Amino acid sequence: MITVAVDCMGGDVGPAATLPACAAFLNSHPQAKLLLVGRPDVLGAYSEVVNNVRCRVVPATEVVAMDDPVEVAMRKKKDSSMRVAIQQVKDGAAQAVVSAGNTGALMAIGRYLLKTLDGIDRPAIASQMPNALGGSTTVLDLGANVDCSAEHLFQFAVMGSALVAALTGREEPTVGLLNVGEEVIKGSEVIKKAGILLRNAANTGDLNFFGNVEGNDIFKGTVEIVVCDGFVGNVALKASEGLATMIGNFIKVEFSRTIFTKIGAIFAYPVLSAFKRRMDYRRYNGAALLGLRGLVFKSHGSADAFAFEQALCRAYDAAHNGLLDKVRQRIAHAAPLLAGEGLSSELKSIPTL
Amino acid sequence: MITVAVDCMGGDVGPAATLPACAAFLNSHPQAKLLLVGRPDVLGAYSEVVNNVRCRVVPATEVVAMDDPVEVAMRKKKDSSMRVAIQQVKDGAAQAVVSAGNTGALMAIGRYLLKTLDGIDRPAIASQMPNALGGSTTVLDLGANVDCSAEHLFQFAVMGSALVAALTGREEPTVGLLNVGEEVIKGSEVIKKAGILLRNAANTGDLNFFGNVEGNDIFKGTVEIVVCDGFVGNVALKASEGLATMIGNFIKVEFSRTIFTKIGAIFAYPVLSAFKRRMDYRRYNGAALLGLRGLVFKSHGSADAFAFEQALCRAYDAAHNGLLDKVRQRIAHAAPLLAGEGLSSELKSIPTL
Repeated sequence: MITVAVDCMGGDVGPAATLPACAAFLNSHPQAKLLLVGRPDVLGAYSEVVNNVRCRVVPATEVVAMDDPVEVAMRKKKDSSMRVAIQQVKDGAAQAVVSAGNTGALMAIGRYLLKTLDGIDRPAIASQMPNALGGSTTVLDLGANVDCSAEHLFQFAVMGSALVAALTGREEPTVGLLNVGEEVIKGSEVIKKAGILLRNAANTGDLNFFGNVEGNDIFKGTVEIVVCDGFVGNVALKASEGLATMIGNFIKVEFSRTIFTKIGAIFAYPVLSAFKRRMDYRRYNGAALLGLRGLVFKSHGSADAFAFEQALCRAYDAAHNGLLDKVRQRIAHAAPLLAGEGLSSELKSIPTL
Repeated sequence: MITVAVDCMGGDVGPAATLPACAAFLNSHPQAKLLLVGRPDVLGAYSEVVNNVRCRVVPATEVVAMDDPVEVAMRKKKDSSMRVAIQQVKDGAAQAVVSAGNTGALMAIGRYLLKTLDGIDRPAIASQMPNALGGSTTVLDLGANVDCSAEHLFQFAVMGSALVAALTGREEPTVGLLNVGEEVIKGSEVIKKAGILLRNAANTGDLNFFGNVEGNDIFKGTVEIVVCDGFVGNVALKASEGLATMIGNFIKVEFSRTIFTKIGAIFAYPVLSAFKRRMDYRRYNGAALLGLRGLVFKSHGSADAFAFEQALCRAYDAAHNGLLDKVRQRIAHAAPLLAGEGLSSELKSIPTL
């Protein structure tokens, strides 16, 4: 039995999305329990879910707003649904938590309550993007850290490998380092140094490091995990969302332009619906906050019930497959590489940044 | 009369793309002349272009290969078509140069022969991406500089404004600073400092600074110019190309899946061809290397004749509209802001990075 704590109040939509998602999730997961965290008066309106024998309401009087500064979320709203939900994981009452609330606040409260794992300096946000192979590419960091060192990138690679191993069962997923070219001599000093650390880990069998990859490789599916600085990852993710939205709107406008194109849309229906399904970012909803002593999953703030359900499923799978232990073990195994043991002389010759 | 020097040998395709492009360009630009730089024996095969009264062949015995290291291109191939073409601009024989060759070599030789403008530390690569408004967003830097300071980003903003003003005639194009959020408190230290410099320049009327923008704003068309570090710009550009390619292939595969979808494709033809035209990255070919004492345009290495022709048109327009003087004037006007004159105390309070 896996119990997931749900911040029912978070996100742009709130309970109108999270509660129906919980209902659907319970139907498809007979082994799951949910802790529904939020204002009991609000949650009471969704009696069918709230009264489900596998659900329990955990009251929280406050809500972190999407635009609340981190300090407000941390210091002023100590009884927020977000914080109380994370507390459930800390207390061992739940094995994972899902929130669609403000990312900065979630990360800050998660770090504060749960702390980071030994060997991890900074947690990272990992999410999936669809690729041309019909699967998905896991990318991290997507915005938790805007000034990463080579060591941080290395830790992201180890944590990303654990995540993909837990979610897919493939023990040695391939890792690529996002760069401006494939050649090892390319990139910033941080990237070059990270490349050395990663190649070294590949030599000791700690990572299945492919090498440098470029932006287009995310969608080609060249590797299973793409590692990058949070600034770069965030821009790449949002640029891709922007482009996908533009293309989607363009197709919609063009098909409704004339009577002839409207007829075309009817004939093109199977393709358009396959396209819509394939590009449906809701299917990829549910980013993992990796590196904490507890499983925290972030749903997109604008998630509807279907999207939020995907985040619940991902959190469940991660808990079910022992993601936390996997991250812990891999970090413990790879950490000595960062401490200088077994480091190649190549790395030592790079000037300190 | 504007003369453009053409590196006819550069790129993956070489003369088979560049020469037909030159022919098409001459047809549509009766006021243009071309200097065709390359091996006379190879160019001789394209007699119609070579014998055009507005063309002159400038011999160069060597060719910079796409994978030549910068040092080889600089030191070993002193009679390369790329170098001889840039030399034409330095000598005043041409007002702009276009090459589809190796970007690193083009930038290095451009800097070596032409030097940078006063007030510019590093040249930047600027290119256009299609946006949802039906126009294009100019993004720089796209990969020339992987470790940018706030001052570099500021210079990119000034140069980008000059470029858009020259190509569109709009004297005060809007500038956005690419960040992980719109709020001024977000982002890396470099970005925050760049934001202060840019707001300051907006206050003195040197720039039409909109504020921070995110990755999706590139395609929304929120601003006319998006400024970023070359690493981030390169990843965003390539990720977008990768996504567009994936979507294009997906649509192709889906429409050819069954007899029914094939019929659908016929009915959807007007939409599909509009989509193809709109997403045709060839139309956006021709990146400007800004900050040099001469106009250098870079075509995509894989450009075909149509794409290369667009780069020629862009170089012609830039020369015709006095881009070089515009960059020079704007930099001269804005440079005192960087020297500390008129700097707000806000900036001085930021610790040196």
